[in-house]
Amino acid sequence: MKSVEAIIEEAILAGKTTISEFDSKKILEAYGISITHEILTDDLAEAEAAAEQIGYPVVMKVCAADVAHKTEQGLLEPGIKNAAELKHAYNNLTTKARELGGRILIQEMVKGPRELVMGLTRDDQFGPCVMFGLGGIFTEALGDVSFRVAPLTEQDAQEMCCEINGHKILEGVRGHEAVRMDLLSQYLKNLGQIGLDHPAVREIDINPLIVRDGQPVAVDALIVLTEPKPKKSEAKLATGGLEKFFEPQSVAVIGASQTPHKAGNDVIQNILANEFAGKLFLVNPRGGEILGHKVYKSIQDLPESVDLAVIILPAAATPEAIRNCAAKGAKAIVLAAGGFAEVDDKGERLQEETLKAIRDSGVRAIGPNTSGHTSTPHNFTSSFFPLGKVPKGDVSYIAQTGNFATHTMRYIMSWEHYGVARVLGLGNKLDVEESEVLEYYAQDPKTKAIFIYLESFKKPRRFLEVARKVTQSKPVILLKGGATAEGASAAVAHTAALASNDRIIEGALRQAGVVRIYTYSHLFLAAKAISAMPLPKGNRISFLAPSGAILVCLTDLCHHRLGLSVPDVEEKTRQYLQDISPPYIRMRNPVDIWPAATATGVEFAYREGTEAVLKDDNIDAVVMILMLTEETGVPSMDFIVELAERYPEKPLYVTFSGQKKYMDAAKEYLEPRGVPTFPLIEQPFEVLSILARCRKAMDR
Amino acid sequence: MKSVEAIIEEAILAGKTTISEFDSKKILEAYGISITHEILTDDLAEAEAAAEQIGYPVVMKVCAADVAHKTEQGLLEPGIKNAAELKHAYNNLTTKARELGGRILIQEMVKGPRELVMGLTRDDQFGPCVMFGLGGIFTEALGDVSFRVAPLTEQDAQEMCCEINGHKILEGVRGHEAVRMDLLSQYLKNLGQIGLDHPAVREIDINPLIVRDGQPVAVDALIVLTEPKPKKSEAKLATGGLEKFFEPQSVAVIGASQTPHKAGNDVIQNILANEFAGKLFLVNPRGGEILGHKVYKSIQDLPESVDLAVIILPAAATPEAIRNCAAKGAKAIVLAAGGFAEVDDKGERLQEETLKAIRDSGVRAIGPNTSGHTSTPHNFTSSFFPLGKVPKGDVSYIAQTGNFATHTMRYIMSWEHYGVARVLGLGNKLDVEESEVLEYYAQDPKTKAIFIYLESFKKPRRFLEVARKVTQSKPVILLKGGATAEGASAAVAHTAALASNDRIIEGALRQAGVVRIYTYSHLFLAAKAISAMPLPKGNRISFLAPSGAILVCLTDLCHHRLGLSVPDVEEKTRQYLQDISPPYIRMRNPVDIWPAATATGVEFAYREGTEAVLKDDNIDAVVMILMLTEETGVPSMDFIVELAERYPEKPLYVTFSGQKKYMDAAKEYLEPRGVPTFPLIEQPFEVLSILARCRKAMDR
Repeated sequence: MKSVEAIIEEAILAGKTTISEFDSKKILEAYGISITHEILTDDLAEAEAAAEQIGYPVVMKVCAADVAHKTEQGLLEPGIKNAAELKHAYNNLTTKARELGGRILIQEMVKGPRELVMGLTRDDQFGPCVMFGLGGIFTEALGDVSFRVAPLTEQDAQEMCCEINGHKILEGVRGHEAVRMDLLSQYLKNLGQIGLDHPAVREIDINPLIVRDGQPVAVDALIVLTEPKPKKSEAKLATGGLEKFFEPQSVAVIGASQTPHKAGNDVIQNILANEFAGKLFLVNPRGGEILGHKVYKSIQDLPESVDLAVIILPAAATPEAIRNCAAKGAKAIVLAAGGFAEVDDKGERLQEETLKAIRDSGVRAIGPNTSGHTSTPHNFTSSFFPLGKVPKGDVSYIAQTGNFATHTMRYIMSWEHYGVARVLGLGNKLDVEESEVLEYYAQDPKTKAIFIYLESFKKPRRFLEVARKVTQSKPVILLKGGATAEGASAAVAHTAALASNDRIIEGALRQAGVVRIYTYSHLFLAAKAISAMPLPKGNRISFLAPSGAILVCLTDLCHHRLGLSVPDVEEKTRQYLQDISPPYIRMRNPVDIWPAATATGVEFAYREGTEAVLKDDNIDAVVMILMLTEETGVPSMDFIVELAERYPEKPLYVTFSGQKKYMDAAKEYLEPRGVPTFPLIEQPFEVLSILARCRKAMDR
Repeated sequence: MKSVEAIIEEAILAGKTTISEFDSKKILEAYGISITHEILTDDLAEAEAAAEQIGYPVVMKVCAADVAHKTEQGLLEPGIKNAAELKHAYNNLTTKARELGGRILIQEMVKGPRELVMGLTRDDQFGPCVMFGLGGIFTEALGDVSFRVAPLTEQDAQEMCCEINGHKILEGVRGHEAVRMDLLSQYLKNLGQIGLDHPAVREIDINPLIVRDGQPVAVDALIVLTEPKPKKSEAKLATGGLEKFFEPQSVAVIGASQTPHKAGNDVIQNILANEFAGKLFLVNPRGGEILGHKVYKSIQDLPESVDLAVIILPAAATPEAIRNCAAKGAKAIVLAAGGFAEVDDKGERLQEETLKAIRDSGVRAIGPNTSGHTSTPHNFTSSFFPLGKVPKGDVSYIAQTGNFATHTMRYIMSWEHYGVARVLGLGNKLDVEESEVLEYYAQDPKTKAIFIYLESFKKPRRFLEVARKVTQSKPVILLKGGATAEGASAAVAHTAALASNDRIIEGALRQAGVVRIYTYSHLFLAAKAISAMPLPKGNRISFLAPSGAILVCLTDLCHHRLGLSVPDVEEKTRQYLQDISPPYIRMRNPVDIWPAATATGVEFAYREGTEAVLKDDNIDAVVMILMLTEETGVPSMDFIVELAERYPEKPLYVTFSGQKKYMDAAKEYLEPRGVPTFPLIEQPFEVLSILARCRKAMDR
């Protein structure tokens, strides 16, 4: 038998772009994937002999390289039951086979109503990716497929099978045996391996993969070849040294300004407001003094070397400034200016020059076009957006946008009562990119959870590799901007046609344990929750509400939209809830607390009810929905703080109904004391849904 | 040929619960649905003759009543190509046929990879409902089906076909002809008609319905019979007369109380606070005076007849009070007390007595267990929850919950700056129910839009009938509490197994043009928007944001999650946006407004940019995302009010980024002046998505 290498090489030498079905299947077989019993033949006698050997009924196909979609082209005769039918079919196909330079393939007939699809595609970003889904006529119509980046673990393979909408057909349905999941997993992992082993393989389609007696069999297959791309031999940039950004001992601001509201002034104000304890040097050709600090006329004039330089100069002046700073010993540089590749061709050229300056001088650089970075454990920020003192906390951000570290940060500081550890605006990512920052946050003792906004991956496979590790110990939550649904429109293979950027990212992120979110506001709502409270241990929620529609609607929301469960509480809990309530109401989870509140007082009922479910082993997190109106009574909020302190292992969130002024007052009291609140009743549940997914990723 | 009636009658007389395939198909054929060519036979000779007549290949099946799922039971031999195979198959099946009391059916073989399913089920609430979806092995595994309530219009039938996820397979895929949509629609409508014509038909399954050359053919079919239920001859309740609730000239409070914070006191406070202009009488056995009003000792003592009585007495005293009020001329009664069927068996009996009292006296009643009703055009409320003066507006509510008209209303009054026309809490719906209130709101000139929270439908078909009419002129937005996904677990037919309560409600509401929402908070967020501004004419949105991630994330949200489009603006608009912006940025929709704001001032840029897109014919609604921080400048908000006034035909909403205090100040300024604002950037888009669906329903 020819080796896989030989088959591929032969096809390439013959100038083929696809490998014939027969040879494609030989490659699959070599990788442990079951294929149909089949024989290539050159004349009718051989075909008859082959059919006898295989056993009727058989299928006859034209087998040639560069042939796809045989059914549509009439290159296939199914269900041949005997020699007479075989002869008839042979007469139909032989001319076509000759025209296409192919041969006649006799193949056993595999029956089964379950047609699956598997494939491999070589994604521009993530490299070889494996696909699984419903096959046959449904492949494109339903698009019910999932992707993973190769190599796949056993768990990746199993998860991608369970992820499709139609996963139930893998079970024993309608008298058919359950599909052998071990084989499906094995095939998927091995498909990935083909992609890793053979750079010339661009796409693989197995469609249909028919299930016979529980065993999946590749009935048709197509391998598409590609000219392997030479690896870009990019000049190596330095790595490491991010601690100089986050823990600088001395900092120079290049382009310091006297003028209030200019970036070169705001950055100094921010550094002073954050009480940076290291040395601060300012540089401006005019010299003089700014905000009580001496101004040096040039970088060369600086009296000593600096760890970090913040360059706030026009784009054109940036490359030279980098070289000068490096000469002065700076290892880390923040490039604030815009006007680079994001703008025009001239900017693109400037960006190239900047990159060269970075490379030549061996510094690390953030930006250009970054909104700066913040490191509260070190009392430092390089932001030139007026921020003031950034509150300390244990959530860290990576943001490929200027929005977050600027006006969204101002919103958080003005209303959301939580602090941050590190924030880094990536800008144009000329040097420092997300995976390296993620790695830094992973080992950072000050960072408890990581939130990311990304529009593109600079080193996609590296990002996944890092994320896969960090998500085992810290939650990583990512909002991907610029989601597109389009696949490659003119693709030959099904896999490629279905391989939209977004589907592959979806699979890759799941594989890495990164929790994807879709709502910008969750970047701060979930962060606030995670900042104040532990992650829930699971997805089992209890909540207390002032009756009726709120209980019903939120239970619907948890079950049908958020993947949260609202389980029965333990009998002793139920009994206690009943004891504090009037007899006419039958208590359960979720907790209809108002009858008890009416009977025993608002504070007593909410306190006792909340404590009962906080103690309950069936419950992972609790939400209190307080009704606050003058007439029904506004309790003092300290009992909630006490409960949160007494049960530190379970998240307790608060939301409201009633008059806005009391809600705001409760928020102002509770949040600084560690209890997060949410203005709309759905929000704490949306947040819990995100955090329960984080926990699941950590438990993988 | 036997008539449809004869077939059904015969099966019932024979004690069968299902009709045989052959007879089921005869019924379908009589209703214009294409079936397979097929012949029932009694011996091999007849079978051979039948196969010759039909033409090989044929299928042989055991045909008997009370037989479902033939494939799984081995009662089917497909692909018989000649007499020899026929004989073989006959030998296989004939014994089984005899055992089942059936005959041998010879049937043409219909080939085609597209297997659909159609069915009819008799829903407890909505009566005969028609199903459509993907059939064969995928029926239950994918559950990709849609439902409509019979009778179906042509539009209903077309919409339910387009609604399934796999609707693309109806198009010409992979060399197969597009499915004849006219036939699909025809079949679906006629299936519904069978259900309406024949009460004995409980379920119909057509599975598979195979597509041959574009034409759908019923290949297998099953009709399940039922004992028709005798129609409940419920004693007729009065109808009409709702104007006495909403426009009473005189009102009596039965159970008026001296004691503050008791329901019988709060209701009087509310009536006075709302400046009710009619006559108000109070009744309490103790007599005296309450809040300056004389108290009569009994209903009989009232000096004159009253339009409306609000009875706030314990449940047990309610029936007698109804009779007394009716004797005094009251036509409309609000029953505030709880403690009826919602509580226990005793309450259930009391509810029966109350119903009898209502029936006997011919009054109309809201409740019991209602939170009351409000009618601001008439300055009246019967609410006993402390509300104070309810602001006037043009949105009306129907709520099957005490939450809405009480603490949610307080929240709205304390923060959301919009008013209501009518609000009615349905309570236990003993008499007045949702469809009648909906009908009243439909003709109410004070009501512009209708919001509904429902947990059950009292008269489901009546509700749909009314809704179908009103949604052509007014938006109707409904939140259904208590959504369950479970279908009938032990159903024989596929249709019944897939007919979950929620799927049927989903179909019914779409059919009626009612826009379903899933988020409680949207009951007020969407109402605020609709209250201040017109409905958008379509789903084409423009928005202005302070750059970057916000533009990207919100465009993603609009396209992928909300069904909104963010189209190109007209060239003249684009050019104008470019003119007010620095040259380095290329302007388009959505509008990146901050470069212009930096160059020309925040107010100028937002005003000019917003006006440009408001004028644009490609745009149906505009959202301004204002960045508000001290340092970047907080513009005066009056220009926004002016824009809203100058372009009254297009919705203009505002949301924010930046410091909370400026957001709140902007809200306090803008909302009372008719411009709705939203604290989170996603919210105006969520609302526009709902309103665009309302518009689409109105344009049906």
